[in-house]
Amino acid sequence: MRPDRSFFNRLADAAKAETLPRFRSPLSVVNKEKGGFDPVTEGDQAAEAAIRALIEAEYPEHGILGEEHEDIGTDRDHVWVIDPIDGTRAFISGVPVWGTLIGFQEKGRSVMGMMDQPFTGERYFADGERSWYSGPDGERQIHTRDCGGMDNAILFTTSPHLFKGAEVAQFQAVQDRVKLFRYGIDCYAYALLAAGHVDIVIETVLKPYDVGALIPLIEQAGGVMTTWEGGRPEAGGRIIAAGSASLHAEALEMLNAA
Amino acid sequence: MRPDRSFFNRLADAAKAETLPRFRSPLSVVNKEKGGFDPVTEGDQAAEAAIRALIEAEYPEHGILGEEHEDIGTDRDHVWVIDPIDGTRAFISGVPVWGTLIGFQEKGRSVMGMMDQPFTGERYFADGERSWYSGPDGERQIHTRDCGGMDNAILFTTSPHLFKGAEVAQFQAVQDRVKLFRYGIDCYAYALLAAGHVDIVIETVLKPYDVGALIPLIEQAGGVMTTWEGGRPEAGGRIIAAGSASLHAEALEMLNAA
Repeated sequence: MRPDRSFFNRLADAAKAETLPRFRSPLSVVNKEKGGFDPVTEGDQAAEAAIRALIEAEYPEHGILGEEHEDIGTDRDHVWVIDPIDGTRAFISGVPVWGTLIGFQEKGRSVMGMMDQPFTGERYFADGERSWYSGPDGERQIHTRDCGGMDNAILFTTSPHLFKGAEVAQFQAVQDRVKLFRYGIDCYAYALLAAGHVDIVIETVLKPYDVGALIPLIEQAGGVMTTWEGGRPEAGGRIIAAGSASLHAEALEMLNAA
Repeated sequence: MRPDRSFFNRLADAAKAETLPRFRSPLSVVNKEKGGFDPVTEGDQAAEAAIRALIEAEYPEHGILGEEHEDIGTDRDHVWVIDPIDGTRAFISGVPVWGTLIGFQEKGRSVMGMMDQPFTGERYFADGERSWYSGPDGERQIHTRDCGGMDNAILFTTSPHLFKGAEVAQFQAVQDRVKLFRYGIDCYAYALLAAGHVDIVIETVLKPYDVGALIPLIEQAGGVMTTWEGGRPEAGGRIIAAGSASLHAEALEMLNAA
C-alpha cells in the first residue's frame, strides 16, 4: 500500500525542475508575513504544485499538507507532508543547504520521507525501515552515530535568534556543553545527523511540514527525534533530534533542568 | 611571469585528492590550541604538502605562506598563500562549505586566487583581471552585485561569537540594518559574494592565508575588500568585503560609528 522509492524520486525530480533553475538567479521574493522576512519564491510555489499534481494523479485518496497551498484531507489514513524549499533563506543566499522535503504519514505517524538537495545532488531517503543516502560519491545505507556523550557532540541549530524567553537559557545549557556548535543549515542538519556526521539538532517554531520528511530519516537511521518534552514530533514546535538514545536523554534532561 | 589557470587547477586537484576522500569519514582530529577547538585534520596537512610540492617543483624561486607548514621566503616578490581547508569546523561537520584557498601575491599584493569546493564541484578563480566560476551548472565570468543599500543587503559572518569587546556592538550595528543575515559558511561566503549572490561579509581574527585567495576573487569581480579601517586586507585581522563601493562605504561608516 505504501508508495515506493521511485515515486518519491519522481516527486523530487519534479520539484527540482522548478527549484534548481531558480537557485542563484534573480528571484521575485515577496514577504509572507508583513514586518518579518519570510521569503516565498516562485520556485517554492511551483515545486509544491508539481509535487501535488503527481500525488493527486497517483494517489487521489491521500491527504496533502504543504507549506504553500491549501491542506487536503489531513485526517485521512495517508497524508503527504511537503515543504518544497525548506531553508528559503539559504536558497536566496545561494548556499546549497536548503532541501525539498517530502514526507509520508500513516495514521498521523511519519513513516517514509525524502530530503533532496538538487545542487549538490544529494538525496536522503527513509523507505519505511531503513535510511539511505545517494550523492556524488555513490549510494549507501546510512546510520546515526553514537558520539559517546555531550562533551563529544556536534550540535546544530538554524539560528540562536529563534529561541525566546526561557528557551534561550535552555538551549545555552546544551550549547555550552558540546564539543562544537554551528548555526544555519536548516533541514540539511537532520540529513547530516541521519548520516552520522553530526550528533544533535535542537530547534523551535517548526511546522509539521518542516519535520514530516525528517522524522523517518532520523528514526530509521537509528536516531531519536522528539519534542523538547519527549513526545512525538509530527506536530513540530520545539524539536530535538539526536544520534543515540543516550545522547537524546542527556540533552532532554539538560533542556528541562535549565 | 604569472602562473596560469591550469597550474592553479593542478594545485586544487592535488589538494582535492587529499581532502575529499577524508570528508565525511572518521577523522583523526587533534587540538591545535590547548583549550580551544581548532581541529587540524590529516587532510589539511596532506593537502598543503601536496600543493607545496607542486609549487616548489615549478616555481622554486617563489615564497610560500601556508597554514599548516613552515613559511618560506615570504619577503620574495612572488608568494603563494595557502589554506588547504578553510572552514575546518564545516569540514568535520560534513557541510560542504569549506574550501581550499590558493592565493598568489606580487610584492605583497594579492593578484590571483582560487577557492575550490571539491564536494559540490565548485571552483572560483581570479586570473589577475577577472573572476570566474565553474561548477555543476557550467562555467562563467562572475560579478558582484549592487544591492542598492544596506536595507536590501544579505550579510554573512562565520560566527557572532568571534567578535570581542567593542566589536560586538560594531557588528550588531550592521546586522540590525540588513535585510537578512546568516552565520557559518567561512570562505564560501566570499565566493558567493564574488558571484553576486550575497552582499557583505564581516569577520575578525582572520589570518593572511584566510584572505590571500579571496581578495582578488572579490576585487576582480567588482567588489571591495579591506580592513575595518579601510586599509589593504592582505594581513587579515578584521575584514569587510562588499559587493559595491557604496555598500562598503556605508558599512565602514556604521562599523566605525558604533
